[in-house]
Amino acid sequence: MRDRHLGKMPRGGTTTARYEEDPDNAWNCCSWCEYLLIVILSTILLVGVLILTLFWVMFYRGGFAWTERPLQQFNLHPILMVAGFVTLSGFSILIYRLCRCVKHIYVKLIHMFFHAVAIPCIALGFLSVFDSHNALQKVNFYSLHSWLGFVTMGMFLLQFVIGFFTFLVMLCCENKTYSCRSAMVPIHASLGLANFWLAIATSVTGIIEKERETAKDPNLSAENQLIEHYITSAIGLTLVVIGIIVTFAVRRTNAPASAKVYVTERI
Amino acid sequence: MRDRHLGKMPRGGTTTARYEEDPDNAWNCCSWCEYLLIVILSTILLVGVLILTLFWVMFYRGGFAWTERPLQQFNLHPILMVAGFVTLSGFSILIYRLCRCVKHIYVKLIHMFFHAVAIPCIALGFLSVFDSHNALQKVNFYSLHSWLGFVTMGMFLLQFVIGFFTFLVMLCCENKTYSCRSAMVPIHASLGLANFWLAIATSVTGIIEKERETAKDPNLSAENQLIEHYITSAIGLTLVVIGIIVTFAVRRTNAPASAKVYVTERI
Repeated sequence: MRDRHLGKMPRGGTTTARYEEDPDNAWNCCSWCEYLLIVILSTILLVGVLILTLFWVMFYRGGFAWTERPLQQFNLHPILMVAGFVTLSGFSILIYRLCRCVKHIYVKLIHMFFHAVAIPCIALGFLSVFDSHNALQKVNFYSLHSWLGFVTMGMFLLQFVIGFFTFLVMLCCENKTYSCRSAMVPIHASLGLANFWLAIATSVTGIIEKERETAKDPNLSAENQLIEHYITSAIGLTLVVIGIIVTFAVRRTNAPASAKVYVTERI
Repeated sequence: MRDRHLGKMPRGGTTTARYEEDPDNAWNCCSWCEYLLIVILSTILLVGVLILTLFWVMFYRGGFAWTERPLQQFNLHPILMVAGFVTLSGFSILIYRLCRCVKHIYVKLIHMFFHAVAIPCIALGFLSVFDSHNALQKVNFYSLHSWLGFVTMGMFLLQFVIGFFTFLVMLCCENKTYSCRSAMVPIHASLGLANFWLAIATSVTGIIEKERETAKDPNLSAENQLIEHYITSAIGLTLVVIGIIVTFAVRRTNAPASAKVYVTERI
């Protein structure tokens, strides 16, 4: 994700020749503080938004169930989608920023692992809303939220498949696939970030749709509605703050490459 | 925005020494095709979303007015916000991608000009909804959309002021402010992109809030409601496609710098 390869690659060279040194760009106090701040803040927010959604669903939307109670089955949808598209994907993106001293192939594998764990969450989240809508005889793929969600899921799957083949399978022929992998890095990174923001946009639209739906519920007291409104607004705001922090965290520096980074490993 | 400065800067050197050459990275057929595709597609979508919003407001929401008709005054809000935060800001970001043969200081000035034109649009858009809410005795800053909008406006203003001072005013002392400007480039670029996505997320939440509000209107026929639903969904989908294209367009390549780029001019 971060641009370490800033010179030309010595094609066909030995492994030890594949790095560049630049002691000027070593870690200073400022970058350590920023690193720590991002680690702490992003962990709090990524876990916090999941806990907040769980709290909202458990205490204000009646908890969970599977097929026997469709309304409660629907409640799995926000939890699983936030877990898959925001918490797991957010950590997966931040891994490139957080694991600075780990060998790059391990960073890639952890990145893939987090996204792979997100897949069953997303699939179950999709199934829960689909089943619940069918049981309640609601129309599927009608609202803007559902269409945005469809685009988000499609892009996520595309990114996963392309990323898996380009950055892991293609490593079996490291030298020959260098230029292809190199060209794919910025595309995969920028579309990944776009997909993350798309997931956030989809989540906030979903929250607003649900909030407007519950606002019509005559069984809810005005006080409870107000508290629920504050909880859902807090979830929405946390989501966009996460988006801003992740975008900021994975920005690429203008400075030259840092010390001893293996060029081919980085892509 | 795009990383052209990939070597060390020859501090105190003459102006002619401040560039790097790399004929390997010259434009090929593929990059021309991509460039043209992005220019055409982004222009169509950025102008298209504004026309679509105008069409929706004119034909389905009763057109415009100022203080005498609060409901029509509100209609200025989506138009002006989409114009300022999406169309103008989108072109302003893409300028870095589109103007490849223009001197960098002109690109900066055009970038600032587009954002400067967006400011009155945003201010009027904010005033129109504020006035309309007051006249209709609606609560201000209650919904998630309004809070997201508040964050978006705050970040926009911060980015504008910091960008103006860092990348234009600081040029009066070009050599001494080099390291500061260099450090600010990736921060300004990443937060700018985050702000653009935030604007998109805010817009889609606003569209959904308005759509849910009008769905309760008993004067509207079911057919008209359905058409309006499709129009607002189309606006929302166009907005996220714009976000994806802009993020993709301003990605930074992994390849070395292209030919004859003046290093200090780039920041």
